[in-house]
Amino acid sequence: MTSANHFELLGTDGQARTGKLTTPHGVVRTPAFMPVGTAGAIKGLHWREVRDAGTDIVLGNTYHLMLRPGAERIAGLGGLQTFTGWQGPMLTDSGGFQVMSLAQLRKLSESAVTFRSHIDGARIELSPERSIEVQRLLGSDIAMQMDECVRLPAEHSDTERAMQLSLRWGERSKRAFETAPEGCMLFGIAQGGDVPELRRTSARGLVELGFHGYAIGGLAVGEPQSVMLAMIEEVVPILPERRPRYLMGVGTPEDILEAVARGVDMFDCVMPTRNGRHGMAFTRFGQINLRNARHADDPRPLDEESPWPSTRTYARAYLHHLVRSGETLGAMLLSEINIAYYQRLMHDIRNSISRGSFESFCERTRADWAKGDIAPR
Amino acid sequence: MTSANHFELLGTDGQARTGKLTTPHGVVRTPAFMPVGTAGAIKGLHWREVRDAGTDIVLGNTYHLMLRPGAERIAGLGGLQTFTGWQGPMLTDSGGFQVMSLAQLRKLSESAVTFRSHIDGARIELSPERSIEVQRLLGSDIAMQMDECVRLPAEHSDTERAMQLSLRWGERSKRAFETAPEGCMLFGIAQGGDVPELRRTSARGLVELGFHGYAIGGLAVGEPQSVMLAMIEEVVPILPERRPRYLMGVGTPEDILEAVARGVDMFDCVMPTRNGRHGMAFTRFGQINLRNARHADDPRPLDEESPWPSTRTYARAYLHHLVRSGETLGAMLLSEINIAYYQRLMHDIRNSISRGSFESFCERTRADWAKGDIAPR
Repeated sequence: MTSANHFELLGTDGQARTGKLTTPHGVVRTPAFMPVGTAGAIKGLHWREVRDAGTDIVLGNTYHLMLRPGAERIAGLGGLQTFTGWQGPMLTDSGGFQVMSLAQLRKLSESAVTFRSHIDGARIELSPERSIEVQRLLGSDIAMQMDECVRLPAEHSDTERAMQLSLRWGERSKRAFETAPEGCMLFGIAQGGDVPELRRTSARGLVELGFHGYAIGGLAVGEPQSVMLAMIEEVVPILPERRPRYLMGVGTPEDILEAVARGVDMFDCVMPTRNGRHGMAFTRFGQINLRNARHADDPRPLDEESPWPSTRTYARAYLHHLVRSGETLGAMLLSEINIAYYQRLMHDIRNSISRGSFESFCERTRADWAKGDIAPR
Repeated sequence: MTSANHFELLGTDGQARTGKLTTPHGVVRTPAFMPVGTAGAIKGLHWREVRDAGTDIVLGNTYHLMLRPGAERIAGLGGLQTFTGWQGPMLTDSGGFQVMSLAQLRKLSESAVTFRSHIDGARIELSPERSIEVQRLLGSDIAMQMDECVRLPAEHSDTERAMQLSLRWGERSKRAFETAPEGCMLFGIAQGGDVPELRRTSARGLVELGFHGYAIGGLAVGEPQSVMLAMIEEVVPILPERRPRYLMGVGTPEDILEAVARGVDMFDCVMPTRNGRHGMAFTRFGQINLRNARHADDPRPLDEESPWPSTRTYARAYLHHLVRSGETLGAMLLSEINIAYYQRLMHDIRNSISRGSFESFCERTRADWAKGDIAPR
């Protein structure tokens, strides 16, 4: 059993792929990076900046949005796009991951997870069916199946149990999604922790069920990068070539290069905005800590060759001052600068794949990072 | 003794005036509202939004900037405009007011005020001469004399002592300013608390010294509006008609209408940004509290007839959600919406004075505020 396909593969270079995914709210160019709009906003950015930075699609957190302002309320207001003013594609997660990390008194059973809201203590039940219902109410373009993600390291038996439960929840999610409007998509999520055999079993089970796209979940939770890459290498060959592949919660620019090289098409991560709020800038020269005193008297921009205006105009001394003073504008500028860096990286990745020069692009990019920041003045 | 004049009166309507003030960094249309850029940034706004909202001039806080990043450092980086990226006119206060309200272990003498920095505890001396030096290092277009502002209510003797000290400091400030480049301005500050006679003595003393412009200080510190207006009425008739008049730290839109009607040309206030951070929006319908549950399901914008895009597009429900969730974007949008409201008000005030219809404009504006917000849905 397979579903309608909205993904078109436009080119490959080794395992790396570039393509386009057509959603009800527009086209997503892949490989794609999705900024995380936790509670209906990308922290520190106006939506026009999200768009101008080159973002095609953003991620919304079902857990946060169902608690506040509520899925039924957002539906009544016309869905996430009308509510927030972001007119492009949106992917929503299932809510399951955040229930396990944020909610209180959570209890997991075969049928659902029950928990108390961290906002008002209300008792809430989230089942695979309710998760799909909530994501439909939000009006997302791409819904994710509910899954259980174990923390690593974990016992083999626990990893296997969670993976099998996730497969059964995937089946229920798919059934619940059957009435979704044409064009909307549901992605299955491969689990299995750091156990190759379980990862393969999970991927095969998902492919048998048939989804619009496939995610690799339960990684980027503190394991070494080598483990993450090994798990991608187990899963990807099992997935259908003509479906999009999404590595959840990843990651650093370096993680993204490695994962694209292994055939991954989509990413999401809070890192560019979270690190921006902590005074870190992602640049061609690697990550730069603006709190560092070396920037205090430096009139030079972060990168005078950057295509992004804020990156090539604001003085390091000013950014340093804003960060040290705790001025909101510091977090705003660095979050925007980081999202722009990530989206420029994705743009360059896509172009290099189209031209068959992905490998040399990666080498050049890594060499730039390795050189480190420009010398202090 | 008078100084070169950079202010041109373009029209009057009763006591209300409209004009233009030419500074080294551009022209300021009056009546003018100056957003407050405490530590080199307007909280929650990008500089392009400050400009797009119709701002001609911003205020920088000498106290904050001299402590961090330091006046000599800003001078080394080319001055405030180059440092911050705000290319327009800047007025700086003297630092005296914030020393008295924020610094620790402060001690006032005839010559100077000494205090400990609230950031690192360093012992600092601020004299009228050093205040001018710092403001010159910052590169501000309009410097303010150092003064002493007493809290109201105050003893008559204390109010008189502070007013006389402020006059002597005004004289010293003027002497220290003599070497400033052509085009830069120094404003004197009338003190005298809520005592008409002291206000008049202060104003006469300042006019005798001769400044590029005259400020009324020590108001908007908690006294009734009627007291504030009465003090303006004492001071303004004494001031030269051809010099700009600046009411410091004021205020609400209603305060601004009243003060313009009494001949004031310039204002500054943290209210639009501070109230924005607390969920309040200034609108044609008066102030609106976005935390209020009545907005939770309201898809309508704050004011569908507003010329400012964010005011006429974002749903009240979305703003309510952002405020309730503590999302940065809520503070960003409301701060921007409020600055835009203030600048639109100033724009309309200037136009109505030019057309000789200021009084009817005030009546219409007050009637709109009095009607209150649109009915809930």
